[in-house]
Amino acid sequence: MRITFCCTDTNAEPWLMGLRQALPQAQVELWVEGAAPADYAVVWAPPQRFVDEQTQLKAIFNIGAGVDALMKLQLPAGVPVVRLDDAGMSVQMAEYVCHEVIRHFREFDLYSAAAEAGQWSYRKPRRRDDFPVGVMGLGVLGQRVARALQSFEFAVHGWSRSPKSVPGVRTYAGPEGFLDFLRASRFLVCLLPLTPQTQGIMNHASLSQLQPGGYVINVARGAHLVDADLLALLDSGPLAGATLDVFRTEPLPADHPFWAHPRIHITPHTSARTLRDHSIAQIAGKIGQLADGVALASIAGVVDLPMGY
Amino acid sequence: MRITFCCTDTNAEPWLMGLRQALPQAQVELWVEGAAPADYAVVWAPPQRFVDEQTQLKAIFNIGAGVDALMKLQLPAGVPVVRLDDAGMSVQMAEYVCHEVIRHFREFDLYSAAAEAGQWSYRKPRRRDDFPVGVMGLGVLGQRVARALQSFEFAVHGWSRSPKSVPGVRTYAGPEGFLDFLRASRFLVCLLPLTPQTQGIMNHASLSQLQPGGYVINVARGAHLVDADLLALLDSGPLAGATLDVFRTEPLPADHPFWAHPRIHITPHTSARTLRDHSIAQIAGKIGQLADGVALASIAGVVDLPMGY
Repeated sequence: MRITFCCTDTNAEPWLMGLRQALPQAQVELWVEGAAPADYAVVWAPPQRFVDEQTQLKAIFNIGAGVDALMKLQLPAGVPVVRLDDAGMSVQMAEYVCHEVIRHFREFDLYSAAAEAGQWSYRKPRRRDDFPVGVMGLGVLGQRVARALQSFEFAVHGWSRSPKSVPGVRTYAGPEGFLDFLRASRFLVCLLPLTPQTQGIMNHASLSQLQPGGYVINVARGAHLVDADLLALLDSGPLAGATLDVFRTEPLPADHPFWAHPRIHITPHTSARTLRDHSIAQIAGKIGQLADGVALASIAGVVDLPMGY
Repeated sequence: MRITFCCTDTNAEPWLMGLRQALPQAQVELWVEGAAPADYAVVWAPPQRFVDEQTQLKAIFNIGAGVDALMKLQLPAGVPVVRLDDAGMSVQMAEYVCHEVIRHFREFDLYSAAAEAGQWSYRKPRRRDDFPVGVMGLGVLGQRVARALQSFEFAVHGWSRSPKSVPGVRTYAGPEGFLDFLRASRFLVCLLPLTPQTQGIMNHASLSQLQPGGYVINVARGAHLVDADLLALLDSGPLAGATLDVFRTEPLPADHPFWAHPRIHITPHTSARTLRDHSIAQIAGKIGQLADGVALASIAGVVDLPMGY
């Protein structure tokens, strides 16, 4: 069995070593142009030429939860794409989102600023009931985030393309449920896949429906957000702040107004990092299953190609 | 039924109104010297004169989880003391501790500093396995904190005076278990009651047993910590940092070295605030039960006076 590895912006060597160790019977090679056709591919944002040349693939494994970079390519028909199914990402996402929700709700930045100024400054506690959280996207990551927020007794609302039932979460679905979902939310957490339907979903029209003092947390993809609309709503008043981990261009360009905005909190796409060991174990396990003839339908994380995620 | 209210540093009016509303059959009055004897007292750090004068009390309700201020007084024999039993505090404690653990583990302060400098600076993720958390005190608050940390997949160790069993937590008890507990922990969270036995429990000898890069979170009482010992261990290297919400003197005096220390994070005793509505409902409910003849043993939060908590 041949496995080809083609991951942009990734230090290939430890991945190759890990995959070889996990699949000792396989030939695992870094992809180069003109390489022999492989059976399975492990990729992150590969070039079009990669898929054009690798015509014998039985499956493509994406080392990330989002496959939007892959979906931009012309993919060969009939080749399944498998994305990471959690692999240590959901716990990171839950802790990132909870940290930001708690930080804002508990006003810890104001406490920090007071402490830096040597001030013992007591603030009136805010009411948790005034801070319902809306989670957009109820896949593995969204459900985990919703559960973590519930454990801190926040009211959690969820929105997804198709109706979903999540214990303890009031769920809304599709365009017809979107307005009610937004109006029920003060925090808005984006965990949607990026598809033509979700591109720009956080814009002036939608964000202005949030409850007063709204707070936006984008941990999905930069293109879910219309940057100028967020800035306008922060500066004109209805939104209190935003935490952004993802951007239309990454790294975020030095002259982008987000950097200097006092109420935008920026992290460099670090909310949920691909953990190499978890990912290798998961991909090797799935390759083993497919090679043993396990049906695709029983493999977690297979992408619905027409849906794009 | 008469209820007397005597709470230092508390705006009495809304408490009196709330208690009157919850117990319309009772006479609820702010305590003044020479007031008529009451049946029940609702207190926070009352003066000795209060207990000396109020000789008819059937129970004393403390509007906080810690009763150390009350234990300093000469209390009348045979009068039960009842502390708040959660009343909305455990969720605040869980979010405070998780926020601090996540902030340090995920290096969010370094990310914030980089973002303020306009730098997109990616850091290698740290391994969660390298950050086991030790929770001292396994009462209502400690168990809730342990559960919250477990939900983020941290290894959690627990230590308490007497042996306790907490699902998923490796527990240690008494002096004989203390060293192993400390050596198993990198984060140390203090949620102990303050008693003669726990005073100064975080000192040079104990803190230097933590794993390298230890991080101390004190959300119990200032006197659990020997201030100079923490400073010495931060400055000589073994400890990475500390988050302190409580201090030997509050407000923390302006000239205390904690204020200026770059690796000490200070908040003004705000980790778990007494929530008035929750507390009134709980105390009124318990007064109602006692008045109806419910046995003390079935009331939550009754203090073991010889133990002091």
